[in-house]
Amino acid sequence: MGDRGGPYTLGQLAQALGAVLEGDSELVIRGVAPLETAGPDQLSFVTHPKSLPLAASSRAGALLVGAEVKDLRAPLLRAASPQTALIALLKLFHPAPPFSAGIHPSALVASDSRIHPNASVGAFAVIQPRAVVGPRARIFPMVYVGEGVEIGEESTVYANVVIREGVRIGRRVIIHAGAVLGSDGFGYAFDGSAHQKIPQVGGVVIEDDVEIGANVTIDRATLGDTVVRRGTKIDNLVQVAHNVEIGQHAIVVAQSGISGSCRVGTGAVLGGQVGIADHVTIGDGVMLGAQSGVPGDIRAAGQYLGTPARPVAEARRIYAAMPRLPDLLKKVRALERRVRELEARLGIESTGSGEADAD
Amino acid sequence: MGDRGGPYTLGQLAQALGAVLEGDSELVIRGVAPLETAGPDQLSFVTHPKSLPLAASSRAGALLVGAEVKDLRAPLLRAASPQTALIALLKLFHPAPPFSAGIHPSALVASDSRIHPNASVGAFAVIQPRAVVGPRARIFPMVYVGEGVEIGEESTVYANVVIREGVRIGRRVIIHAGAVLGSDGFGYAFDGSAHQKIPQVGGVVIEDDVEIGANVTIDRATLGDTVVRRGTKIDNLVQVAHNVEIGQHAIVVAQSGISGSCRVGTGAVLGGQVGIADHVTIGDGVMLGAQSGVPGDIRAAGQYLGTPARPVAEARRIYAAMPRLPDLLKKVRALERRVRELEARLGIESTGSGEADAD
Amino acid sequence: MGDRGGPYTLGQLAQALGAVLEGDSELVIRGVAPLETAGPDQLSFVTHPKSLPLAASSRAGALLVGAEVKDLRAPLLRAASPQTALIALLKLFHPAPPFSAGIHPSALVASDSRIHPNASVGAFAVIQPRAVVGPRARIFPMVYVGEGVEIGEESTVYANVVIREGVRIGRRVIIHAGAVLGSDGFGYAFDGSAHQKIPQVGGVVIEDDVEIGANVTIDRATLGDTVVRRGTKIDNLVQVAHNVEIGQHAIVVAQSGISGSCRVGTGAVLGGQVGIADHVTIGDGVMLGAQSGVPGDIRAAGQYLGTPARPVAEARRIYAAMPRLPDLLKKVRALERRVRELEARLGIESTGSGEADAD
Repeated sequence: MGDRGGPYTLGQLAQALGAVLEGDSELVIRGVAPLETAGPDQLSFVTHPKSLPLAASSRAGALLVGAEVKDLRAPLLRAASPQTALIALLKLFHPAPPFSAGIHPSALVASDSRIHPNASVGAFAVIQPRAVVGPRARIFPMVYVGEGVEIGEESTVYANVVIREGVRIGRRVIIHAGAVLGSDGFGYAFDGSAHQKIPQVGGVVIEDDVEIGANVTIDRATLGDTVVRRGTKIDNLVQVAHNVEIGQHAIVVAQSGISGSCRVGTGAVLGGQVGIADHVTIGDGVMLGAQSGVPGDIRAAGQYLGTPARPVAEARRIYAAMPRLPDLLKKVRALERRVRELEARLGIESTGSGEADAD
Repeated sequence: MGDRGGPYTLGQLAQALGAVLEGDSELVIRGVAPLETAGPDQLSFVTHPKSLPLAASSRAGALLVGAEVKDLRAPLLRAASPQTALIALLKLFHPAPPFSAGIHPSALVASDSRIHPNASVGAFAVIQPRAVVGPRARIFPMVYVGEGVEIGEESTVYANVVIREGVRIGRRVIIHAGAVLGSDGFGYAFDGSAHQKIPQVGGVVIEDDVEIGANVTIDRATLGDTVVRRGTKIDNLVQVAHNVEIGQHAIVVAQSGISGSCRVGTGAVLGGQVGIADHVTIGDGVMLGAQSGVPGDIRAAGQYLGTPARPVAEARRIYAAMPRLPDLLKKVRALERRVRELEARLGIESTGSGEADAD
Repeated sequence: MGDRGGPYTLGQLAQALGAVLEGDSELVIRGVAPLETAGPDQLSFVTHPKSLPLAASSRAGALLVGAEVKDLRAPLLRAASPQTALIALLKLFHPAPPFSAGIHPSALVASDSRIHPNASVGAFAVIQPRAVVGPRARIFPMVYVGEGVEIGEESTVYANVVIREGVRIGRRVIIHAGAVLGSDGFGYAFDGSAHQKIPQVGGVVIEDDVEIGANVTIDRATLGDTVVRRGTKIDNLVQVAHNVEIGQHAIVVAQSGISGSCRVGTGAVLGGQVGIADHVTIGDGVMLGAQSGVPGDIRAAGQYLGTPARPVAEARRIYAAMPRLPDLLKKVRALERRVRELEARLGIESTGSGEADAD
């Protein structure tokens, strides 16, 4: 979208970010750009050590770096936390678009819903009876807000999101386009001839400061609530089944699936495409590597990987050993032959290849 | 959404469910709740043996249980099938919202479509020419119904579903929000310089009593039809590719993917995140564990697991053995050394570590 | 949808396709159908050797085949590339529906957007300020086109697609229903107590002739652009994270996930449900089998499979060896016992089971 804030001098930026300036305070900076493409009037940044080689060759007019970075010739802004400073920097150059409150005339808003006068409701949005939309909440076009839904202040709901009846959404929540909240949980009882649908009459609760990615699905509980606690961030195309509870400040990367009635702890991290079986507990601080499959509880904080998920060091040892398995089969066959030969020399009767030793 | 039906006495409930009452028939029950949260005026339920400890400590006013459950102090409703009784119970306390027929004035309905007068079409829905919507079918707001689509009686299509041209949907089908039916199959022919699109001119047929989860995608066939047969239930974010046929009463759990031209048998069960390669046949009654990958046909009923999917007992033995692989490599190396030493003692020339034995 | 073009005689079809006719040029063909269902007035086709048995028993009036096919009794149309000829054939019998330009009166189109007079905009579509829609582009109902979006000529955007601000889309691009382009990348900095959102202020660029499946998600870059290059085809439910660049003419099968800042090379093929870790480079011509997991760069063209992905021959050897692992454990245990016995006979002191040999 191009830069909309600025320009600023390096000195102004150092002050705004609380960073230490090493270089010309009058240098004019017109934008932020990646190391590869930044030009002499742009600032770039080093938030990861592996970016250092790129930083050395970058044409950026100046660099935002941490305390430990050395030997760069460009003017520097040194910040205690370059990542946090980067956030402030991006907001300076890309201020949020102005918010204009009001209900678009094409939106269909039930007369007994309560839309705060400072909220915004976009074109063709549908707000059903008894829904509540808080101050400075922003409902984009074509959003469906079901009966009795609550959306807290300063929350943003992007286009084409569907929020079914009774779902409760906290403050400063962001829901990306196409997400579906409150669809029926997947529950049936087989009666001998057909799957009978178990009514899914519970709800969904999304606490404050949660972010929910595009085309995510979060099912309502059978009874009670499916809950996503404060500060948790969910990436695109994630499935959260009925009666799941995800703790605070968790991270769920794209395309992961959390089955019914799981508990995911505070600060847990699920890499991409992780799958968790139903009724499983994932403890606080558990980190599951991408594509992990979790058939049972993992309670101790730490890193896990693989299917079934194991402590990461163990999983890596297995991964490293697997390519040697075909050769190992040959080696063992050769050993068996050689041992038989030795036994023959010594007049020992061979006991075969382990059958007698089966467990 | 809170309870809307009731209250009922235990005696009334026993009669309505055909259950045997063990306790005070005059006890008033105001709702159904999980064992953990149910209070003295609520009924809870035991549909799985592992809930028994929770049941013993539940504050629920009464419990719905099966024949085999013993030693609970709460008043009991004993049902031959507690799961089926639970369905009836939930419907008593949570009756379906009243259905109001009619076409919302904001909906765009083609003049040559046929909407049954008892059907309902929500705000901003688009019904294209020659579409047919049956009696008591419910089309939520912002649904797109393409040209010539047929939707059978009592089917429900939630908000923001897209049903492209020519798709045929049976009776009592439920399609959750954001699902897409009839998108083009993924077919190209590489002409040496680019992928040429193969026109996808077939259709999609969804038979009676199918349920389709939120944000599911079901592609139209190249020619002929992609088919989901009667009674099958599909969870959220599942991909069904062109020309797939899923048999009756199958279960497809979230995020599974079924590639082009697969056949999935009657009563088959696909766990979450299962992937099936194209042109594969999955037999009747085959159950695939979560995250299984299926490169070829599996015809015999039974449980399978893993990538490539194997009979579950075999897969579990492999999973259990895998952590011992790194140690096994060391053991075999030690054995080779020891056998060389033995051979040296006996004057046998070593034949190395298996190379001579390669297959 | 039934056939809409034709009928044609076999002679007419041979001429239109540039195929050699072996049979009656006056035979009337009314449609194209799969081998299993084609009748005597329909043409079917053999584009894969494994279809030959079906072809022999097909009731099709005639068959489209390649040069190498023999011993079929039906009249034949022989084409140098049967797949390319099939595309032409399908277009003859299923011509694209007529395109009618114009903006539906219910669409909401910003006055300072530029919609080409030959473009089409469907009902309830929302076109935000400064968006540009090229000639013969087709915007289906309920599409959201954000501020400053560009959509090139002859592109098709199906219903309920969301294209957020600033996304640039080339010519002849097809975007299937429910896809979301330009949602925020998934980036946070943990400040010790909460995940702070890193503003995602970059864009998305989709080049010419790209096809994007239903419910796909493509995130905008943090800075710079997420890019999908010319001719690449993306299947349903794929996740493309921020700052990814996918090269030309790549194929990404359903439910694959490409993490942030990945580079995917020209002509690369990702099978279904593949996952690629962030900042990974996939070289030109790399083909990843379904469900592969890629933790690090793969630069050499060729086929790879598994998690972690390995050259396909190696992965297959591992898969084949895995079922023998449980038995191998037993065999090695037996060998250890036998070697101990041999050592005892020769008066050698056993060195145990490999501990002394650990690496």
